[in-house]
Order: sequence, then structure tokens, then C-alpha cells
Amino acid sequence: MADQCVFCGIVAGRIPSHKVAEDDSTFAFMDVNPASDGHLLVVPKRHSRDLLDIPPDDLSAVTLTAQRVARKAITELGADGVNLLNCCGADAWQTVFHFHLHVIPRYVDKGRDRLLLPWKPGVAGDRVSIERSAQRVSSAVT
Amino acid sequence: MADQCVFCGIVAGRIPSHKVAEDDSTFAFMDVNPASDGHLLVVPKRHSRDLLDIPPDDLSAVTLTAQRVARKAITELGADGVNLLNCCGADAWQTVFHFHLHVIPRYVDKGRDRLLLPWKPGVAGDRVSIERSAQRVSSAVT
Ligand SMILES: [Zn+2]
Ligand SMILES: [Zn+2]
Repeated sequence: MADQCVFCGIVAGRIPSHKVAEDDSTFAFMDVNPASDGHLLVVPKRHSRDLLDIPPDDLSAVTLTAQRVARKAITELGADGVNLLNCCGADAWQTVFHFHLHVIPRYVDKGRDRLLLPWKPGVAGDRVSIERSAQRVSSAVT
Repeated sequence: MADQCVFCGIVAGRIPSHKVAEDDSTFAFMDVNPASDGHLLVVPKRHSRDLLDIPPDDLSAVTLTAQRVARKAITELGADGVNLLNCCGADAWQTVFHFHLHVIPRYVDKGRDRLLLPWKPGVAGDRVSIERSAQRVSSAVT
């Protein structure tokens, strides 16, 4: 646990939250700045800073909890779809440095849904640059 | 395998792709419409439609592969951060109905990075509506 960490405080109950689910290693609670109705966060109980830092067992557990609550958000809230989002690093919009996975129910009714697609789909990439990236990443994956 | 599924075709090698990583149950390859330099997708080799459909073992394996390639994208491509994104359902921007997790390296250099935050952060939600959502989802999680 990191003393100054807000999400460690929520997991420990020192900071109030709207809890949605909890098991041995994960904790799910509502995002207080929701991007859509039912927007919630799933965190590991053990403190990890981000995607680079989280142990595989906690990452796996968080993802499976996210799947369970996503399913329930769809059935219970009448969502039409759901997005999972992780932000790793300040330059990728991470603002709380305790790993968290956003579960964002989506709605055709835009009164319940404030998300905009963050990139233009269908813009074909530069083939040479894609190949170069593939080679650099794949040669290094172990 | 679904005969008409593009990603099943990529996994089977019938459709060309820029492969980045592969193990017994997962396959990672470059997105041909990249939102940033190095944008790639991780899929389960077994066909699943979406987050609601994918078996927990495949979901866990895909996420761990995503963590590995995200780490390498940061070191090999010099990314400053990374986003993971899953889109479940057409109303959540899913366009290929074989489960996939986007791994999107992020850069301070906006010449390499075309993502925009898809919602306004810091807009406090309506407390009553948040509590109501929490109750409905949490009561149903098993
Ligand atoms: Zn923490
Ligand atoms: Zn498929």
C-alpha cells in the first residue's frame, strides 16, 4: 500500500466509494467523474503503479472482474455496449497512479453517454512505418 | 473459427498481417489503421465475438500478451505511455466481431500520436445517479 494513494485508501475503506464488486484481489467502484452512466473502475487491492508494474496474476484478476461487471452493467443498466480502457502513464491520460481498468457502459441514447471516438477510424496507415514498428516490437518480444 | 471472420483469417495465415507476437492461445499484429505509431491488436486464436463471449482463460491470455507487447512498444518505439482499449458491441465502436484488445502506444510528439481524450475529465457526476447505478450493478454481480 502507498500511503498517499487514493485508490489504496478506497480499497482499505479509509476513503468512501460506491463499491460494486470485491473479491480476494480486486475491488470495483464507481468513477465519480463518469464518462457515461455506470462508468466504473476495477483495481487490484495490492498497489501497482500501472500496466508496466502490475503482476500478471493481478492483471488477470482485474480483467476477469471487469468482464463480470461489464456483463452486469449491460443487463442491469440496459447498456448497448461497453468499453474497457487502461491508461498507462501521464501521457496516456493516467491521473491516479494505482493501476485501474475503466469499464464504460455505452448507450445509443446520447443523454447517457458522453464518449467520442478518440481517433478517426478508417484512415489507412503508412505501410512502411507500420512494418518498421512491427519489426521493432516483434524482435524484442520474449 | 468463423469462416467469414477477418481475424480468424489472420490467425490462420490466410489473410496477411504484420505479426508482432504469437503464443499457444493469442496472436498480436499491427492495426492497419493506426491511431498512433505502433498501434497493434491482440486477439485470441479461438474465435470469440466480444468481451461478453470470450472465455476467461482466453481473456486472461490476451491481456497478458497485451502487457508484454505494451512493454516492448514503450522500450522499442520510445513511447511515453500506452492505452489498452476494448470495444464491445457496435455501439461501443466494435467493427470486427472477433474479440480484440487495442494496444495504443502514446507519444508526447503529436506527429506520432493522433488520439484525443474521448471525454471531458473532471466533470463531477450526479451523485444520485452514480449511487443508483452502483446499486443496480453490485446487487447483480455474483
Ligand atoms: Zn494504491
Ligand atoms: Zn474470428
